[in-house]
Amino acid sequence: MSHSIFSSDAPHQEASNLTAFAGNDLDRQAEHRDEQSVEKALQRDGTHILAFTKEKLVLKHDGQVLDPLFARYELQELDPDWDEAILLGYRKTGEPRLAVPVRIDAEELACQYKPADARSLYRDMLLDDMLLGEVAQGVSLIRWNGDNRFCGRCGSPMESRIGGYKRVCTACEHIIFPRTDPVVIMLAIDEERDRCLLGRSPHFPEGMYSCLAGFLEPGETIENAVRRETLEESGIQIGRVRYHASQPWPMPHSLMIGCYAEAKTVDILRDEAELEDCRWFSRDETLAMLERVTAPSGHTSPPKGAIAHRLMRDWVEWNS
Amino acid sequence: MSHSIFSSDAPHQEASNLTAFAGNDLDRQAEHRDEQSVEKALQRDGTHILAFTKEKLVLKHDGQVLDPLFARYELQELDPDWDEAILLGYRKTGEPRLAVPVRIDAEELACQYKPADARSLYRDMLLDDMLLGEVAQGVSLIRWNGDNRFCGRCGSPMESRIGGYKRVCTACEHIIFPRTDPVVIMLAIDEERDRCLLGRSPHFPEGMYSCLAGFLEPGETIENAVRRETLEESGIQIGRVRYHASQPWPMPHSLMIGCYAEAKTVDILRDEAELEDCRWFSRDETLAMLERVTAPSGHTSPPKGAIAHRLMRDWVEWNS
Repeated sequence: MSHSIFSSDAPHQEASNLTAFAGNDLDRQAEHRDEQSVEKALQRDGTHILAFTKEKLVLKHDGQVLDPLFARYELQELDPDWDEAILLGYRKTGEPRLAVPVRIDAEELACQYKPADARSLYRDMLLDDMLLGEVAQGVSLIRWNGDNRFCGRCGSPMESRIGGYKRVCTACEHIIFPRTDPVVIMLAIDEERDRCLLGRSPHFPEGMYSCLAGFLEPGETIENAVRRETLEESGIQIGRVRYHASQPWPMPHSLMIGCYAEAKTVDILRDEAELEDCRWFSRDETLAMLERVTAPSGHTSPPKGAIAHRLMRDWVEWNS
Repeated sequence: MSHSIFSSDAPHQEASNLTAFAGNDLDRQAEHRDEQSVEKALQRDGTHILAFTKEKLVLKHDGQVLDPLFARYELQELDPDWDEAILLGYRKTGEPRLAVPVRIDAEELACQYKPADARSLYRDMLLDDMLLGEVAQGVSLIRWNGDNRFCGRCGSPMESRIGGYKRVCTACEHIIFPRTDPVVIMLAIDEERDRCLLGRSPHFPEGMYSCLAGFLEPGETIENAVRRETLEESGIQIGRVRYHASQPWPMPHSLMIGCYAEAKTVDILRDEAELEDCRWFSRDETLAMLERVTAPSGHTSPPKGAIAHRLMRDWVEWNS
């Protein structure tokens, strides 16, 4: 009797679904997008809109409660740009969800509104997982549409089509589609000495170490990108690579691809332009960082929900 | 004693490295790219250049031999656009490799030159694996640079920087980086009945069936994209997803992410706009397609080197 090609983790346990921004379960109806998508959705009952000023989400706040969901009529005073409205999809209840850019700057918003970027929404846990996932989708598309108002080929204005999922040049008819940037993020493991490789960017909070990471480049496999980035940043040579999990990362439109990487060497040669420190951590040290135990070292890991946290946690618990 | 987190496959056996376009092992020196990168490379001995007219590679042909490698002086008669030259990287021998767009159209090339797109180079096996991988990197960057001559934010001209890996707006200083589009491609497996799900696009060669595939969208994990695309195209519901391999796919700048997908249902509801057929194939039928045995059915798989071929082959051989 042959055994399954799949692991024993059900989808709700899969590592990707345990990351922040992954909770989006909108029915995108990708194959039914057309020029009427937005108008049809706006005519449905219970339509709710996420409003964005540049890449910041606008939240209504009424005393204690922060609410990002606007009804159509509520949006009017923020000067929405309906030509750039995006249909994100439909909730299981049938409720349509849109993202709409508004022309009021964050600084000019009245006091009942609060702008927040995706990173703060995640860090300060201001939204539930599902809504945070919808915001991730919204931010990425708002940014991509905003970055492509003019045609890269001829410089003429472009127009939004099929609910924000396509742009077409008004002069040369060049067509473009939304962009997602794959990033490899990896935990290099020295299995013989039971330790993992972590680094510190200068812009990290004090004491925090995380996995190395970098953009996958055109013409690379995931595995080769993991090997190249690890070598560039740390001087460590990598053998085998194992995919573990992925995460939407709306800063502004990345896909984090999380992998384990087999360290074949031990001597670190840090890229000083990228990292202010890079070192090996034992399994016990890594566990203490994840648990945010006040260790004498004062080191911490990225917070729960970060794919780096997931890679570290799942390695610590591997075979333990 | 704990067992390794890595599989037993060494890097040279890993599935990704067995796909076409993955053979690129240039040292990209990504962290050392600067405004002098191209000029420095051109001054080295043994520099070779891949020449592109639009997205087509220009090959020199001299009787029987097709040669895509131009010395700097050989390129002059094709009217190269040196401002848009791209430094791909360095071979292990130290030989620099560049990609340069030329202003002569494919139709106007003299008879000693032959233009060829990446798909034909792969299908007709005109180049060795390493060179094909370098061409993949070149095509993707040539296309991205060509698609972004003007700024998407303000419509002003953009200029190439750091050897083709960055563009900057001459007016608003907006900066952009190369684009790679993640695509999920998956073999859905009905383990109980030991069969896999394959479909036929109308533009496939006669008799060919392949894995379902589609672009990953902003705000999705890899696993959720696999579930969404399979459901949209075939009506089959997917449970667990297992990453298997990735492949650079320069048509023009995709990253194919190959996965196995656990089929939870059996009744196919085909997306008629996308597929002209979609059906289950037994392990024996799949093997016959891979071996290109003339079966009564006349069905074939994509050729060796295609990631779909890899997914099918590695499933057939799983536990067999």
